[in-house]
Amino acid sequence: MGSLTSSSSLTINQEKLASSLHESCQFGAAHRWGKSTEETGMARLALDDTDKQVRDWLMEQAKTLGLKAFVDEMGNQFIVRPGKHSDMPPVMMGSHLDTQPTGGRYDGILGVISGLEALRTLVDSGYETEGPIGLVNWTNEEGARFPKMAVSSGVWAEAVPLQTAWDLREVLAKDGAPKSMKEELDRIGYCGEHKASYKSNPFAAHFELHIEQGPILEDEKLKIGVVKGVQAFKWFNITVKGRDSHAGTTPLYARKDPVLAACKLVAAANFIAHEFQGLATTGIFTTDPGTVNTMAHTATFTLDLRHVQDEVLAEMVKACETEFQRICKDDSEQGCEVQWELLVDSPAVEFHSDCIAAVEASAADVCSSLPEAQGGKQLWKYMISGAGHDSCYTNMRVPTSMIFTPTRSGISHNPTEYCSPEDCALGANVLLGAVLRYDKQ
Amino acid sequence: MGSLTSSSSLTINQEKLASSLHESCQFGAAHRWGKSTEETGMARLALDDTDKQVRDWLMEQAKTLGLKAFVDEMGNQFIVRPGKHSDMPPVMMGSHLDTQPTGGRYDGILGVISGLEALRTLVDSGYETEGPIGLVNWTNEEGARFPKMAVSSGVWAEAVPLQTAWDLREVLAKDGAPKSMKEELDRIGYCGEHKASYKSNPFAAHFELHIEQGPILEDEKLKIGVVKGVQAFKWFNITVKGRDSHAGTTPLYARKDPVLAACKLVAAANFIAHEFQGLATTGIFTTDPGTVNTMAHTATFTLDLRHVQDEVLAEMVKACETEFQRICKDDSEQGCEVQWELLVDSPAVEFHSDCIAAVEASAADVCSSLPEAQGGKQLWKYMISGAGHDSCYTNMRVPTSMIFTPTRSGISHNPTEYCSPEDCALGANVLLGAVLRYDKQ
Ligand SMILES: NC(=O)NCCC(=O)O
Ligand SMILES: NC(=O)NCCC(=O)O
Repeated sequence: MGSLTSSSSLTINQEKLASSLHESCQFGAAHRWGKSTEETGMARLALDDTDKQVRDWLMEQAKTLGLKAFVDEMGNQFIVRPGKHSDMPPVMMGSHLDTQPTGGRYDGILGVISGLEALRTLVDSGYETEGPIGLVNWTNEEGARFPKMAVSSGVWAEAVPLQTAWDLREVLAKDGAPKSMKEELDRIGYCGEHKASYKSNPFAAHFELHIEQGPILEDEKLKIGVVKGVQAFKWFNITVKGRDSHAGTTPLYARKDPVLAACKLVAAANFIAHEFQGLATTGIFTTDPGTVNTMAHTATFTLDLRHVQDEVLAEMVKACETEFQRICKDDSEQGCEVQWELLVDSPAVEFHSDCIAAVEASAADVCSSLPEAQGGKQLWKYMISGAGHDSCYTNMRVPTSMIFTPTRSGISHNPTEYCSPEDCALGANVLLGAVLRYDKQ
Repeated sequence: MGSLTSSSSLTINQEKLASSLHESCQFGAAHRWGKSTEETGMARLALDDTDKQVRDWLMEQAKTLGLKAFVDEMGNQFIVRPGKHSDMPPVMMGSHLDTQPTGGRYDGILGVISGLEALRTLVDSGYETEGPIGLVNWTNEEGARFPKMAVSSGVWAEAVPLQTAWDLREVLAKDGAPKSMKEELDRIGYCGEHKASYKSNPFAAHFELHIEQGPILEDEKLKIGVVKGVQAFKWFNITVKGRDSHAGTTPLYARKDPVLAACKLVAAANFIAHEFQGLATTGIFTTDPGTVNTMAHTATFTLDLRHVQDEVLAEMVKACETEFQRICKDDSEQGCEVQWELLVDSPAVEFHSDCIAAVEASAADVCSSLPEAQGGKQLWKYMISGAGHDSCYTNMRVPTSMIFTPTRSGISHNPTEYCSPEDCALGANVLLGAVLRYDKQ
């Protein structure tokens, strides 16, 4: 027992981490790309049957470790190991187990499973922390099924009203009417009794390990990103209304064609993103009623706009608004109408300096023992996250920061997403080291 | 009894025509736009439950008139009244009772119900024709549910193989896997025992009354279009393949974004249609997997290209092929791949001069009795149809032509589609007159 002088005194078992991670991926594995069992992606959409299975599995893991677990009204799962002072709020490690429909085995999953293995390391070693240390699996981080990313950490932070979250409906209904989050929480038995709130369920801090999901660490031959913040992003649902009419008998000049107009808007948003050095992405595009020989009356598409600076993102939105109006009015035959709906508004985030310092110290320590570090090469760097994370919401209420690991070819939200077992373990050790450093402050 | 010197001796009852038409529209009425019962559009997709209901209703009508009805293996319904020489093939009046999902009460329906009222007029008057006179309701003319327009007259003409038609799958599955035409024919009990073939079920001729679906007759204050042919069109399904990746962490330069590329292709096709004075329409656009924050791996869209000349349409297709390749290769960051699938290929059609002459004589006769015709104003004109029709296929095998009636504001494939009761009756009388003229030749 006793105090920790170097992370080397407590080390996460690399094989166990890898086997736990892939064991958890038996639920929702999909999109095979290689021969071995582990060479698949994932399709574990929030609150579907496979998400229920992995949640049950996580509850079992807590039980095996002899730790208490509970669920809040957003389905967020919490596992806590007591410390010397059990009246203190816990230092939490958190991420998510839901994936994109064509997702990988690391995005979110690595963070949760590393937290689990960190807890296992503490339990197995009998190491006594000052305050409690815990793990949280946040519901529907991806926003892939219910289109508000990190909605459940958002409710916990009281930044998203509970009812708004519960009422969120599936973006694409598989059968019948699109189901709400509340319906699906009830259906899989994960609408817990604990209130989802930082007030009744406070943390001391929140640390999140995550794959970078971009190419930078790999390109620069680095091992760890010490994440200082997250770029700003806004998600919109854009509806373009025209008039349905016959494809063969309606002259071009007489058309109000919302599909054609929407296509021009998507191209315009990309042009604007280039101009402002930001990002614009349309992932969903639908047409209604949708037949080959009828112009639709309505086209809808999603627009994900990002920039590291809030002010520039606001300018990008404004430029899109102006250009969309112009195209719908002056560059689409008889004109169309365009409506904007804001789905997600995630301002730029700066993480807490204490947490960043704990991660930095842990990263420096863990990386220094690597063979590549010989000659004093620094194997970590400060980074800004391109993707949003639950940590954006926790940061509103408690000191927070994140740790990144390399991602093969920078590819994420894709079945071939990959982080090597060595890099996964390195990240998990940085996570454990940061948590223990923070606990000792 | 006896010979017919002028269409005035046999006249279709305007009120009965209107009441039959709206009675048939009780099955599948949808999209209310006005207060009265009749002020709705239609959503009667081929072989759905409402299509079964209107088919049953049509069988009942045949029974009431004491006429024989039968169904072929494509669900085409035939009702025939014998003539003096019952070994002769019948002169047929044909159109369709299926509609677009946001369709109107006239497209196709007017043609079938006018044929029914023409038969009723013959039965009620006891008028004896030389050969048999009949009515056909062709299955899935719209191509809205099963994406091959006029597929069932196509099978009858032996231009589309039976199995190809039977295997056609719904373009948008409502629940579960998309169903095939054969499955749906069996489900609603309309896969008849008669072979769908002009050889075993020959016609003497085929006449089709249809709303114009465009603005020309109304704009020129004319009453009847004597249709000499149909413009050429081709339907394609275009698939664009890229790579799914993260919307927040994938720099613009590193993207293979198939949605962005597809949007540029849709805009390019419209530009090309303008250049060639043809038409280009995209009615369906889908994205896969479809989440806000992931670039799709696949975008698909339909492309309906039309021109009055086959050669110019071929040039339009070629121009699109070249431009699509260029955009996917050189104007879409890391590039995408584009694949073309031909869904429908309908060359330009010239109807039979004997049928055109019969329609012209009938139109001249019927129109001359209108008050607007005073002073000798000609109220009909020759036209080329912008839309495809079952008559395109019948024309391959038997003398065929068509009659157009005015369409309010040129709007069709829309719930507000409208043709006045007077214009409907005028068209029906031209149809009856043309059929009787042809019968007497
Ligand atoms: N980590 C992650 O992919 N989160 C989804 C939210 C986002 O799109 O940035
Ligand atoms: N009449 C009609 O709308 N037919 C559909 C075929 C076409 O799109 O031209």
